[in-house]
Amino acid sequence: MRARLPADLPQALDPRSPVARFGTDEPLPMDAGVLLAPFQIAYQTAGTLNAARSNAVLICHALTGDQHFAHTHPVTGKPGWWETLVGPGKPIDTDRYFVICSNVIGSCMGSTGPASIDPATDRPYGLDFPLVTIRDMVRAQAMLLDRLGIRDLFLCVGGSMGGMQVLQWAALYPERVFAALPIATGPRHSAQNIAFHEVGRQAIMADPAWADGRYLEAGTRPAKGLGVARMGAHITYLSEPALHRKFGRRFQGGSAPTFSFNADFQIESYLRHQGLSFVERFDANAYLYLTRAMDYFDLAEDHGGVLAKAFQGTKTRFCVISFTSDWLFPTSESRAIVHALNAASAPVAFVEVESDKGHDAFLLDEPTMFSAARGFIDAAARARGL
Amino acid sequence: MRARLPADLPQALDPRSPVARFGTDEPLPMDAGVLLAPFQIAYQTAGTLNAARSNAVLICHALTGDQHFAHTHPVTGKPGWWETLVGPGKPIDTDRYFVICSNVIGSCMGSTGPASIDPATDRPYGLDFPLVTIRDMVRAQAMLLDRLGIRDLFLCVGGSMGGMQVLQWAALYPERVFAALPIATGPRHSAQNIAFHEVGRQAIMADPAWADGRYLEAGTRPAKGLGVARMGAHITYLSEPALHRKFGRRFQGGSAPTFSFNADFQIESYLRHQGLSFVERFDANAYLYLTRAMDYFDLAEDHGGVLAKAFQGTKTRFCVISFTSDWLFPTSESRAIVHALNAASAPVAFVEVESDKGHDAFLLDEPTMFSAARGFIDAAARARGL
Repeated sequence: MRARLPADLPQALDPRSPVARFGTDEPLPMDAGVLLAPFQIAYQTAGTLNAARSNAVLICHALTGDQHFAHTHPVTGKPGWWETLVGPGKPIDTDRYFVICSNVIGSCMGSTGPASIDPATDRPYGLDFPLVTIRDMVRAQAMLLDRLGIRDLFLCVGGSMGGMQVLQWAALYPERVFAALPIATGPRHSAQNIAFHEVGRQAIMADPAWADGRYLEAGTRPAKGLGVARMGAHITYLSEPALHRKFGRRFQGGSAPTFSFNADFQIESYLRHQGLSFVERFDANAYLYLTRAMDYFDLAEDHGGVLAKAFQGTKTRFCVISFTSDWLFPTSESRAIVHALNAASAPVAFVEVESDKGHDAFLLDEPTMFSAARGFIDAAARARGL
Repeated sequence: MRARLPADLPQALDPRSPVARFGTDEPLPMDAGVLLAPFQIAYQTAGTLNAARSNAVLICHALTGDQHFAHTHPVTGKPGWWETLVGPGKPIDTDRYFVICSNVIGSCMGSTGPASIDPATDRPYGLDFPLVTIRDMVRAQAMLLDRLGIRDLFLCVGGSMGGMQVLQWAALYPERVFAALPIATGPRHSAQNIAFHEVGRQAIMADPAWADGRYLEAGTRPAKGLGVARMGAHITYLSEPALHRKFGRRFQGGSAPTFSFNADFQIESYLRHQGLSFVERFDANAYLYLTRAMDYFDLAEDHGGVLAKAFQGTKTRFCVISFTSDWLFPTSESRAIVHALNAASAPVAFVEVESDKGHDAFLLDEPTMFSAARGFIDAAARARGL
């Protein structure tokens, strides 16, 4: 069954991504206790699967990312979001590996989510869509790999929410992950991070145009609420030093305050732009669902409160990367992962990259991250005989 | 002229604060280039002014504070916001000092602000109220002191935005300040802090009930927008360790997620409560104006970019206090003040208090802050012969 969509939704503007459809005979078992069916997963690939099917890399995207990791984005026209790291000759070398990235379940770029049509009511799910967890995302990705005939991954890699998926992959399907590279992430979402997400959700829900989540039928869009949510979140993706370096207290188009509520400072203008451009490419309900999925993530809690048990007996090799100025997922969160892997006797390398770019460093030009990733991936490839 | 107010505004609920009224013959010269007249300043006092008029202490309140530093709040019924520090036998000893705190110009607890009636139009100012600066607040306080017959202050003290006023007092009226105690503050508002404020303002302005600032006439209140603004700001007042200690990932009324957008986590419930209770006591436009005043604050910029010049030749003695876990006004900001005071050869003590309570530590039970303040104030009192 093909999901129907309002014509101005981002995923309706993206007919180019391949889609794997799962019918009522192949439901997605979700942590919320429901079987989701039918559903579909949109994805993109780069490179070629080798004859042994042993060179597959799964990239897991972050909260507001999507499957367009190395292709021009169909809505924004911008380059793929991880072209810094992925491509011919890059650390994730598309001349050597078959790279897959799928839009997570619950999102809005072609995979089934709250903007999709609920077959039970023939209208968009809205908040009737079941709450999504990181584990649900991973289960759906595993079903996609089954469909593509890929038994196991050479590498599972991702940053932020993508890193949560990497950890969940290693915990849920250890025999399917040869190497795991979680970046700028943590084994659970902290109280402060939950708090920031909750503010964003309240901003969306406070917008009358949100219409209790039924804005698609109401013909409205909670653009103001979603814009405010994005502005607030964006601050947490950067660091104070990066903001100071990029913007400082510089005025927009002048050297003095206008004594008004206009965007006097460059930082204000920049944030407003972030909010405005985001609402053109993202669905407000999807934002609610994916922030909630991150909030619910607590890998230790799933294993009796002992994180090491999540990795007990694993044969996966790990490399954990953090950034010194990332205050959303500070190095202490990565250390917790590393300590648990040590306790589980798993092979693990840990690299804390000196950077002033904050959380978003994983998306940016960070040579130290590139060389750490390249070294880990090349060694893993040798170990796998690639 | 007495300002008329809608009956449900906070300041209308506070008829008990003394008010100093300034007529058209005594306008307030504002940095925005206008003369504000008439205007009024609401204030509270504690203790007794001595015969020499030499024991006056001015407390400067923070963004959402007010004049009720040591008296039960007329709207919330809560104790005064600085009863930890001020009172009989406390570091700011009301048995020894005459303590004054006035509601800043532009706020909403009895002093003239955007909710007051504009005599030119006979309707609430709304955004027609001139933009306010920290210097405007200090000028208005100086006019209040003149009215009260107080030539100079024994001590000027405040935290956060209150600390900005203390620094501005020392720079603008050095001969009127014997001792200055700025706490948890900085010599300018950082790009990150401007960014957080801008998100709050956009949340308010995104609320249709804000009605372009004319909500008083429209009979509406932008409660949702102001609530979201407060929720976001509140996160910045605390520290990640404090949030972890107080709330962690504990669920509200249970041990498992509800798989909904209810306030599952205690931190969510707490934040929602902060938002709801704030809108009952604060005016949305006043929030816009006071956040803007903080954004505009840059004491060095007023002195050719050299902070030390703000204090050149001062005879005021300073004590600067910061808190290790304050990431809104980190210790580096206090150090910048101290370095400038050193460069200006001003007597200055500097205390960084070890605390995990974040920015709000200055309002809380912090024995190290109390003893540092007591030591500084007692020594200053001896030097002044009190």
